[in-house]
Amino acid sequence: MQRAGQRGGSQLCGTVARNGPFRQFRRELMGTVRHIIESQQFDREYLSTLFERAHAFSEQGKSRELAGFTMASLFYEPSTRTRFSFEAAMYRLGGNVITTENAREFSSLAKGESLEDTIRIISGYVDLIVMRHNEIGAAKRAAEISPVPIINGGDGAGQHPTQALLDLYTLFRKFNRLDGLRVAMVGDLRYGRTVRSLAYLLSKYDNVELIFVAPPVCQMHEDIKDFLSGKSVNWREESDLDAVLPHIDSVYMTRIQKERFHDQQEFKQANNAYRLTRENVSKMAQEAIILHPLPRVGEIDPAVDNDHRAMYFEQARNGLWIRMALIQQLLTGDRN
Amino acid sequence: MQRAGQRGGSQLCGTVARNGPFRQFRRELMGTVRHIIESQQFDREYLSTLFERAHAFSEQGKSRELAGFTMASLFYEPSTRTRFSFEAAMYRLGGNVITTENAREFSSLAKGESLEDTIRIISGYVDLIVMRHNEIGAAKRAAEISPVPIINGGDGAGQHPTQALLDLYTLFRKFNRLDGLRVAMVGDLRYGRTVRSLAYLLSKYDNVELIFVAPPVCQMHEDIKDFLSGKSVNWREESDLDAVLPHIDSVYMTRIQKERFHDQQEFKQANNAYRLTRENVSKMAQEAIILHPLPRVGEIDPAVDNDHRAMYFEQARNGLWIRMALIQQLLTGDRN
Amino acid sequence: MQRAGQRGGSQLCGTVARNGPFRQFRRELMGTVRHIIESQQFDREYLSTLFERAHAFSEQGKSRELAGFTMASLFYEPSTRTRFSFEAAMYRLGGNVITTENAREFSSLAKGESLEDTIRIISGYVDLIVMRHNEIGAAKRAAEISPVPIINGGDGAGQHPTQALLDLYTLFRKFNRLDGLRVAMVGDLRYGRTVRSLAYLLSKYDNVELIFVAPPVCQMHEDIKDFLSGKSVNWREESDLDAVLPHIDSVYMTRIQKERFHDQQEFKQANNAYRLTRENVSKMAQEAIILHPLPRVGEIDPAVDNDHRAMYFEQARNGLWIRMALIQQLLTGDRN
Repeated sequence: MQRAGQRGGSQLCGTVARNGPFRQFRRELMGTVRHIIESQQFDREYLSTLFERAHAFSEQGKSRELAGFTMASLFYEPSTRTRFSFEAAMYRLGGNVITTENAREFSSLAKGESLEDTIRIISGYVDLIVMRHNEIGAAKRAAEISPVPIINGGDGAGQHPTQALLDLYTLFRKFNRLDGLRVAMVGDLRYGRTVRSLAYLLSKYDNVELIFVAPPVCQMHEDIKDFLSGKSVNWREESDLDAVLPHIDSVYMTRIQKERFHDQQEFKQANNAYRLTRENVSKMAQEAIILHPLPRVGEIDPAVDNDHRAMYFEQARNGLWIRMALIQQLLTGDRN
Repeated sequence: MQRAGQRGGSQLCGTVARNGPFRQFRRELMGTVRHIIESQQFDREYLSTLFERAHAFSEQGKSRELAGFTMASLFYEPSTRTRFSFEAAMYRLGGNVITTENAREFSSLAKGESLEDTIRIISGYVDLIVMRHNEIGAAKRAAEISPVPIINGGDGAGQHPTQALLDLYTLFRKFNRLDGLRVAMVGDLRYGRTVRSLAYLLSKYDNVELIFVAPPVCQMHEDIKDFLSGKSVNWREESDLDAVLPHIDSVYMTRIQKERFHDQQEFKQANNAYRLTRENVSKMAQEAIILHPLPRVGEIDPAVDNDHRAMYFEQARNGLWIRMALIQQLLTGDRN
Repeated sequence: MQRAGQRGGSQLCGTVARNGPFRQFRRELMGTVRHIIESQQFDREYLSTLFERAHAFSEQGKSRELAGFTMASLFYEPSTRTRFSFEAAMYRLGGNVITTENAREFSSLAKGESLEDTIRIISGYVDLIVMRHNEIGAAKRAAEISPVPIINGGDGAGQHPTQALLDLYTLFRKFNRLDGLRVAMVGDLRYGRTVRSLAYLLSKYDNVELIFVAPPVCQMHEDIKDFLSGKSVNWREESDLDAVLPHIDSVYMTRIQKERFHDQQEFKQANNAYRLTRENVSKMAQEAIILHPLPRVGEIDPAVDNDHRAMYFEQARNGLWIRMALIQQLLTGDRN
């Protein structure tokens, strides 16, 4: 596997030289991001610097840089996977964590305390808040009044920016570039926020090609397709996964949700058509990779796990390095 | 804002000089408090020393003094706010925390394990237990048999001493004295344990004046009024909040609970009568402050938050310094 | 109380000398245990080394050896007692913990994520996983695919090996030997996994005598009795607890579960017959000890707690030292 090194970083930053002035520039750049709320807030330069840092953490594993800092995990709905990833990241930076999956209790006990009041109180206790909420826009509201950084760990059907960043990082880490990648997105493209965010982020890079493979009821929404066309991104829709697989750099699988289908026969058909097995995976290029935000159910046969192209567990692990890089940036700025 | 400095401390301690013997005295004094169970257990000397320490922590922010110490948060009912405050305090002292909001499970699983057995087991694992329980007197029972310090984080309708201490500390921190303060307590004075405890603690100081403003069904209970009269504390009841506001040093607001009222029209009336807005707050003295144990619902208009007299979020934050001071005292005694 | 010192350790190891080669041997020995799954995996040599370490931790109390390491508590059902013991052990070693009592949510959210996928993801975040699961064999399945050590914190009606180890350690710590001990096991011997595991472990030692005292519906299962007979362990069943008590080194009490009885009169009778009181305890040998895995309900009168033979709370505390020793071994091997 190729990895994003310093070369990758400077490549992404275009013509900016990696010398003194560049470092100064990066410092200012990273310093301007005070909260992590939505995928739209990042530009190529920020992403490049972030990936460099994530890569450094993946080599270093642990640090003591944030000893004495405390993070609050404020989860209004449980998401153990996401919470664990953030908390492990904080501990690997030397910090501490206070945590609840029960944050709704704040308002129930209060019979109506506002999110803003809750954030004002918690932000008096800790240095950073990671929050997950069931309502779209909750993280943004929190960020507007919080004196400490807010990271959006998912707000309902809205954004889950750190997932989008780790997806993009996994591609970059493999190919050492993002320009020119051909990515197939498969499964539930309509309701899955990960594919929407990834498509958005990839649109920042040159000559990217996106192929959408979904059952009719789960097609990518018009808003994203219009956006991509406006940015001159090369995209198209296909229905035959097997025909697509040999010609891409990465296939991004997602779980098709049974409940989207009225006709269960139709669901079964769609689900089987969009399933990776050892057979169709063998037709992929040797350098291609398989991604999945997880959890998966039937859409990737466990027999594929041992294939060198299966990268979804490493992708989950990459979330650790991305989250370490984000937390470190928010709490220390760029001090290197 | 004025702050409690060393002068404040020695002032509260009356004629005791801040020299060697005084330090010795304080060491012994603080050493005698082994558990934090109820407001009644503190005298002026203890409070004075505690506030000095809390103030030092508020300037210092963090410490590594309790590295290697572990606290258990044993919550029989969830109270994320209180739990977070204690846990953030422990982490800021360099210690660690094991935590449950599910402590009831101990006894359910056991189909009847006693609180005493639970405490005996947990106290074998950790250095300090913060507990919240739904039954009055639970913390006291725990303290009677625990070999490690117990802090009462609220026992049903009973005590919540650390809330009372942070309320008192916030007044002291602002005025650098407690003698002679005029405090209006507003809202649910009958069932709210915070106002009862604060009235009790203020009775230890000279020339304090308390004004109780509550709807008829929520009036302060006779027991506290008798107690205050016995201590010659100057108290009275008023019904017109606007008439009271211009003549006090602090207004302590509490949430009026809808369910106390049979007649919902009556509730609405009471709730509107006892509500702080920019208009009536503007009549308060410039140096006066607004307190609230939080959560608030409608009794303080959010438009008041930006007024310099609004001190309730800072009050919540003061809980951090008070809890750091309490934990440090319990685990180390006075070593300074 | 006598304690397991270095002599105890070398005694258990038979003729192996405590010199250079022995140390080398121990290092290899301990290094071979990669997961803690079931009582059957331990031999006398492993146990001996483990108990030496546990004893060292009980004297030392705390260490910083695992600073920077993170453990996940992955509990599919709540067991606050077990979880607290493991987490306190990890913190006493200087490590950190991420925790959930809500692990079932992984699979519910995923509508069917496999345990194996969950473990693959979590093992990418942390250095060690302690898991409790409602299904027999879950820990073993996890260990088969996990790149980091798994400790079984109880899998349904299956195994709870760390409880068995702390029980055995408590006996060893008291008597400085395990050969020749006479142990009565009392109560629910049929469904209680602790007595089954302890009987199994004791069978490794010479001249052990086991007396089973249980109501007819709760008798020890044939599989264990056959196993013990095959190993030539001296065992017998008795119904009169008072007649047994004077002639044993230890009585291991367990809670009789009301729901096992059809006839509630029969339950009452059995429960009263198998109850320790100051009266029958006074007939035990002065050196004998009373054990109980806890929680207890009525089977040991609280009046017995002050008797010097009552060792059940110390037994719970010994779990801390055993778990510290296990975690340290898994994460560092024998480096001494």
